[in-house]
Amino acid sequence: MSRFAKASAVQRVEEGRYQVELDPGFGFGEIINGGYLMAVLVRAAVDASPHEHPMATSANFLRPGRPGPAEVWVESRKTGRTATTARLSLVQDGRPAVDATITTGTLDPDAAPTWSAEALRLPPIEECLTFDSGRGERGFADQVDMRFDPAMMGWLDGRPSGRLEQAAYFRLRDGEEPDGCSLALAIDALPPVALNTGGIGWAPTVELTWYMRAVPAPGWLTVRGSGRLVSDGWFDEEVEIWDSADRLVAQGRQLARVGRGK
Amino acid sequence: MSRFAKASAVQRVEEGRYQVELDPGFGFGEIINGGYLMAVLVRAAVDASPHEHPMATSANFLRPGRPGPAEVWVESRKTGRTATTARLSLVQDGRPAVDATITTGTLDPDAAPTWSAEALRLPPIEECLTFDSGRGERGFADQVDMRFDPAMMGWLDGRPSGRLEQAAYFRLRDGEEPDGCSLALAIDALPPVALNTGGIGWAPTVELTWYMRAVPAPGWLTVRGSGRLVSDGWFDEEVEIWDSADRLVAQGRQLARVGRGK
Repeated sequence: MSRFAKASAVQRVEEGRYQVELDPGFGFGEIINGGYLMAVLVRAAVDASPHEHPMATSANFLRPGRPGPAEVWVESRKTGRTATTARLSLVQDGRPAVDATITTGTLDPDAAPTWSAEALRLPPIEECLTFDSGRGERGFADQVDMRFDPAMMGWLDGRPSGRLEQAAYFRLRDGEEPDGCSLALAIDALPPVALNTGGIGWAPTVELTWYMRAVPAPGWLTVRGSGRLVSDGWFDEEVEIWDSADRLVAQGRQLARVGRGK
Repeated sequence: MSRFAKASAVQRVEEGRYQVELDPGFGFGEIINGGYLMAVLVRAAVDASPHEHPMATSANFLRPGRPGPAEVWVESRKTGRTATTARLSLVQDGRPAVDATITTGTLDPDAAPTWSAEALRLPPIEECLTFDSGRGERGFADQVDMRFDPAMMGWLDGRPSGRLEQAAYFRLRDGEEPDGCSLALAIDALPPVALNTGGIGWAPTVELTWYMRAVPAPGWLTVRGSGRLVSDGWFDEEVEIWDSADRLVAQGRQLARVGRGK
C-alpha cells in the first residue's frame, strides 16, 4: 500500500463511524494539511456511498488537525441514483476539526466533454522550480512532488507578482496515480495565492469547496491558483486542476484569512 | 416591511429552531427558487450568530422546496471572534430540502480592497433586455427586476452563444437595497449558463457555495455567470456580483445537472 493510501485509509468501526491515524508526513510541523484532511473525509464518504467519486466537497476548517488518531463521522442526508449526499465530521479530542458535506456520484471515465474551457498550460516542467523553504520543514514536500511556475514565485525573494496567483505541476512521490482522493490533496496544495499580493506566512482556510469533474489520466497534474479580491483581511483562492490529457478534472475555491506572519 | 423581507423572515421558536412561510412569489410554478431558500437560511444563521454577514454559505439542494410552511434548524459548530460557523437545514414535511453550512462574520462597510480584479461592466442598462418567458410564468420575475446582456440571450431564439455565460443587472422590485440576504437571491437568479451550450429547461443545482465579500452599495447589482466544463451531464456555473460602486460583493459557484427539457 502506498504512503498516501495508507495515510488516508479509514477503518469502519460501525455504520457512520470510522477511525483514522493522521500521518505527520502530511503536515507542516504540528499542523496537518487541509487537503489531506479532506482526502480522509472523501475516503469515508465513498466507503459509505454506493457511488465512486467525490462530485462536490465543501469543507469548513474549524480547528487545526493534529497528527495522531481521529474519527470520521458520516451522516447520510440523501441517497440517489445520480448522487448521494452526506454530512461528515473529522473529530479529534471530542471536537470537530473539519466539517464537510460530500456529494458522491459515479463519473464515466470515458466521457468526452460536451463543452470545455481551454486547457491550462504551464511552462515545460524542466523550467519549473522545486520548493525548498530553507527551514528544513520537509514534511509535506517529502510526500508531494511539485514543480512551480517561476513567473509566480517572486514572493520567495520578496518580489511578489502583485496578482493572486500560483501554479505548479503536482504528483505523489509514492508513485500513486491521481484519483478522486488525491485530487482533494492537490486542490489545497499550493502556497497561498495571497503571498503574491503581500500576504505573509500561513493563511488559515475558513471554507473550501471543490468539484471533481472527470477521472484523471495517469501522470502529472497541473494545478493553477488565482483569486479575485483581497479585502478586510479575507481573500479568495480559486484552483483548477488539469490532467496529463488536458482535461479539467477538478475545480475549487476557498475563502481564507490573509496571513500576517508568525 | 418589504415583500422580500417578509418572504425571508424567520421566526424563532426555540434555540436553533425557526419557522418560515415560503412565498410562492419566489417560485417558478410549484418549485421555489434556490437562492430564496438560501436567503431564508442566511436570515436564520445571522439571527443565531453574534456576527452580521454571511461570509461563506455552502448549500446542498436535496429536494425541491414548495410554497408554504417550513422549519429551519440551526446547529452551532464553532463560535469565534472573527467567524462563527453553523450547520443548517431547511426542513419541509419532516425531510431536509436544503442543507447548508454558513460561516458568519462582520465586514467593515468602509473597507477599501487591498487588491481587486477589474470591475465587471455590462452594456448600458437601456440596451439590456427584460425577460419574458411568454408562458405567463411571472412568479419570480414579479419580485426581481433583471436586465439581461443581449449578447448572451441568443438561446431564447434558438441561437445559443456556445459559451457558458449569462449576465444581467439585478434589483428587487420592492425597492429594498441589496444586503447579505438578498445577495443569496442574486447569486442564483440567472438562467442556467448551460442554456448557451445547448442545455434545455430547468437545470437542478446539486451544490452551490458563495462568499459575501463586501457590503453592497445601494443601486443596481451586476451579476455575471460563466462556467468551465459541461461533461457527463454535469456543468459548473460561476457567478460574480458587483455593486453600483464597482466593488466585488459576492462570488459563488454551483454544480448542476444539464437540463433536458420537461
